[in-house]
Amino acid sequence: MGLFGEEKVVYKPVEEFDVGPKSDHVYVRANVKAPRMAGLVVKIFVWFLESRIFGTLLLFMLKRNNLIHKFITNAELGEPPLYVPLHPFEDVKEQEVKCIDSDLSPPEKVQQAINCLPNSSGKILNGSKSSFHPWTILDYSRAYISGEVTPRMVAERFIAAVHESSNPPLQMSFFINYNVDDIVKQATESTLRYKRGQQISVLDGVLIAIKDEIDCAPYPTTGGTKWLHKVRSCIDDACCVKRLRLCGAILVGKTNMHELGAGTSGINPHYGATRNPYDINKISGGSSSGSAAVVAAGLCPVALGVDGGGSVRMPAALCGVVGLKPTFGRIPHSGVLPLNWTVGMVGILAGTIEDAFIVYAAMSGQLPCDQSNCSILWFNDCSDEIRVSCSQSLDKLKQHYGWKIVEVTIPEIEAMRLAHYSTIGSECSTALSSHLEKLNPAELGWDARVALSVYGSFSSKEYIQAQKMRSRQMQIHMKIFAQADVIVSPTIGVTAYPIKDDALETGELDYVNGAALVRFSIAGNFLGLPAVTVPVGYDKLGLPIGLQFIGRPWSEPTLIHIASAMQALCKSNYRKPEVFYNLLNRD
Amino acid sequence: MGLFGEEKVVYKPVEEFDVGPKSDHVYVRANVKAPRMAGLVVKIFVWFLESRIFGTLLLFMLKRNNLIHKFITNAELGEPPLYVPLHPFEDVKEQEVKCIDSDLSPPEKVQQAINCLPNSSGKILNGSKSSFHPWTILDYSRAYISGEVTPRMVAERFIAAVHESSNPPLQMSFFINYNVDDIVKQATESTLRYKRGQQISVLDGVLIAIKDEIDCAPYPTTGGTKWLHKVRSCIDDACCVKRLRLCGAILVGKTNMHELGAGTSGINPHYGATRNPYDINKISGGSSSGSAAVVAAGLCPVALGVDGGGSVRMPAALCGVVGLKPTFGRIPHSGVLPLNWTVGMVGILAGTIEDAFIVYAAMSGQLPCDQSNCSILWFNDCSDEIRVSCSQSLDKLKQHYGWKIVEVTIPEIEAMRLAHYSTIGSECSTALSSHLEKLNPAELGWDARVALSVYGSFSSKEYIQAQKMRSRQMQIHMKIFAQADVIVSPTIGVTAYPIKDDALETGELDYVNGAALVRFSIAGNFLGLPAVTVPVGYDKLGLPIGLQFIGRPWSEPTLIHIASAMQALCKSNYRKPEVFYNLLNRD
Repeated sequence: MGLFGEEKVVYKPVEEFDVGPKSDHVYVRANVKAPRMAGLVVKIFVWFLESRIFGTLLLFMLKRNNLIHKFITNAELGEPPLYVPLHPFEDVKEQEVKCIDSDLSPPEKVQQAINCLPNSSGKILNGSKSSFHPWTILDYSRAYISGEVTPRMVAERFIAAVHESSNPPLQMSFFINYNVDDIVKQATESTLRYKRGQQISVLDGVLIAIKDEIDCAPYPTTGGTKWLHKVRSCIDDACCVKRLRLCGAILVGKTNMHELGAGTSGINPHYGATRNPYDINKISGGSSSGSAAVVAAGLCPVALGVDGGGSVRMPAALCGVVGLKPTFGRIPHSGVLPLNWTVGMVGILAGTIEDAFIVYAAMSGQLPCDQSNCSILWFNDCSDEIRVSCSQSLDKLKQHYGWKIVEVTIPEIEAMRLAHYSTIGSECSTALSSHLEKLNPAELGWDARVALSVYGSFSSKEYIQAQKMRSRQMQIHMKIFAQADVIVSPTIGVTAYPIKDDALETGELDYVNGAALVRFSIAGNFLGLPAVTVPVGYDKLGLPIGLQFIGRPWSEPTLIHIASAMQALCKSNYRKPEVFYNLLNRD
Repeated sequence: MGLFGEEKVVYKPVEEFDVGPKSDHVYVRANVKAPRMAGLVVKIFVWFLESRIFGTLLLFMLKRNNLIHKFITNAELGEPPLYVPLHPFEDVKEQEVKCIDSDLSPPEKVQQAINCLPNSSGKILNGSKSSFHPWTILDYSRAYISGEVTPRMVAERFIAAVHESSNPPLQMSFFINYNVDDIVKQATESTLRYKRGQQISVLDGVLIAIKDEIDCAPYPTTGGTKWLHKVRSCIDDACCVKRLRLCGAILVGKTNMHELGAGTSGINPHYGATRNPYDINKISGGSSSGSAAVVAAGLCPVALGVDGGGSVRMPAALCGVVGLKPTFGRIPHSGVLPLNWTVGMVGILAGTIEDAFIVYAAMSGQLPCDQSNCSILWFNDCSDEIRVSCSQSLDKLKQHYGWKIVEVTIPEIEAMRLAHYSTIGSECSTALSSHLEKLNPAELGWDARVALSVYGSFSSKEYIQAQKMRSRQMQIHMKIFAQADVIVSPTIGVTAYPIKDDALETGELDYVNGAALVRFSIAGNFLGLPAVTVPVGYDKLGLPIGLQFIGRPWSEPTLIHIASAMQALCKSNYRKPEVFYNLLNRD
């Protein structure tokens, strides 16, 4: 029947694949056929897209031109579908990994994590030898214990800083919601605990911000929209937030995000475009834009995000902070907006890998132990600047530790990106459908309307074909992990790009840059693999560059170990952002 | 947006459900809005359905009128999707169940099963006290050992019987393929083994027929079509067939089936309508039509089928034999046509529950043990005759064993039927799409063309909504199984109905009868639960009535125990079919 004689890919069996450095696999670059649009053009485009006849035709053309038909819909692939990337926990054979007893309370888990921190940590960061370092959880904890500063004082500095950053000339749009009384109340209680010597854990009194996709009392959960919190009320902390609260952390409010998580720029037409602390005219990335930016700006050592398609790692890399996305299923998702079911995971944004690890341990954990030898596959497709910076960092790792690094090509990652897009789109559209049908479309931002139109256009065949691609890629990645401990790549293919004025009201359609940002993140979501990004350098404009490590299922300990080694080698070059609040030492 | 102001169901949380006998749940009968069609009317209907404009509109109307939009597409339900009904094996806490060591060879497993057969078995069946009994595996095995008859002699009688039944006046259309030389070769080898006293197991020399959806050398696997074997060659036995061959069974050929398993009548336009041995003018049901009919007609004690939507249990009940569908995932599916991925399972059709158990053990197994007490939920929605017959049988069970039986309503089974239909349809359409696009539609039967048109019409939202319904029904059923060991219902809502002449060439669209047949089977497929049907009586016309037992995941031992008790109470009334071949005792 071959509709309009369309092209299609016939995928060869995975057994016939060579994933080694000499593979004959033809690498397909992202081939996005969609001009950048913003302002009035977006409005006209939405009008066409939402009309019944034009819309159907337009969506068909868009999916065809962007190779979804060729790579997914009409493709021939023999694998059965894999719907959920849940890896049986028993399969893990991490050497020298200690599992934290799951019966321990979150504060006890945090204590175990502290005992287990790599020896190097704290030492260098704590000294003043490097040019710039963000204050860490341990810095705060020590300062509170010494009495040099109280949680109450830090909270007041925080409130003043947020106030300043929210208003002209900065207008950083970090937060969607923060409640001064609630912050002061928590800080006062923590201060009392320190006074009595009864602090709960090293997280006691530490400020943590929460992406507005995660329930956190007393705030509504907007998902970056003007309406979702009206139809779905937040009645309790999400499970992950509850665990942090149990450790004494001060939850300082809800960070800005790309509307519904349906984009990568972090430009939100309702709550403002989150600006990059390294250059306020540049994007912070998304969708966990505010969480990345507040950490970069020194407002919190740690923030929570949600990563359904790189949404933690991309803004982390663009803002020069650490982003950790654990294995699918590692952290309970109750109390997180159900915007998808098979690709999302709560993630952590932090100034240092050790801080990310402490918070990860509080929410759910395994402890890392020293690993003497790691094998690394290196893979890249990015701007020259990023490539140079990343490979120089890898060279340091090789020189310092003697780890083996092999350059490879990951097969079919463009097809995986499209399959992931069909999946997250179908799930998001289904998850929201009963709300959307009651909604006045004008309450949605323009770029979210475009996204939701495309999301709602997939057939069950496209969805199931995407799941077949998922099981295929899972097999390919298991072949890769038979050869190496981690896959290393740039986190993002481009550094932060400008926020243009015409995008502020309508948002921006820029799928070319979007694909360049998201490309390397997808295996983490679609296959549920744990992944972490660490800052390794800066481009000519001084914008951060991140390096990503993707590991085997449940291998967070290995990832943290490697990322910590990488960080130790790079941190002497870390630069201070343009917008930075030094809450511990306000000189 | 509420397209055309359509109705939708808002499902209340499962926690608020009372699944007990006093539930206020409103029971929704199957509400199929589709007139029976056959002959020329079907051809005209297909023409409309396959045209681009009319087809889209027609499919929309069909899905709306049959409440798919109301119950599935537009429904509001809070559950996350559940894509695959795989129950962790560790959860099973079957008391007094022995697991067969999975390292044992199939013949060793069979021996363990024989040692474990309920004491009652064999005894009564072996005597001549009941009016009719089919020969069992043990009957064949004993006859071979005694030398009274050889596998070779039985094979020759079988070949003569199949020849007779295939030609006028009977034209039973039992088989799609059988190879006389291959059968004689296997039978000769088995005969030699018995002569040398080297028989492999009780299955040695026992005739077993295989549904033409399962690979079995040297036959092509047609799936009931004229073309599928041309694009997908059968190169080896399916895993389940291999295990039976290892036990010495004689594989006698490929049984007829509903084309692509996409219907319930067993009327196949290419290979003939499989006729019911109890009345050759009536359907045998489907899709495993031939496998049920050959067992009923005494040609084989056992046959294999595949059950994706009652396809083993329905024909078993209509033809008066036992049908066992194991828990999803119990028997490896390699070598079975991938017509779906999340609802199908190899199943067993047999003259007695003990024979079904022996073959089940050969393919994969747990052994049943005596259970002193069972609790049973009784649920029905069927013709009066079936209800009376089934409840009388249950009364016997109650009187004989004192087991507690409570009458209940299973909530939302009509919605589950529609969700299952959307699921199996979407998967089948995706699985076949790359073949179908190359196919001349004229190679497909007319009713299969209708099915494939509807199957291809689902959106990803409909598919995911169906998976949300799956997780909802899983929770409902787990609540039910907290109260009882098994759910008992009629297997089918109607007994075998006539094969009309106008259906022979085009097949027949009869979704009203289809829904009545399939209604009780769905939990077995959609939730992956094990289920078994045993014959318990006959209607006024002498057509068989089956009673179905559905159990907890992995509880085949309990099901076999209960079904065996039921069979023991009913078998003195078993009647001989109109068409029956007495291969052991040809008087």
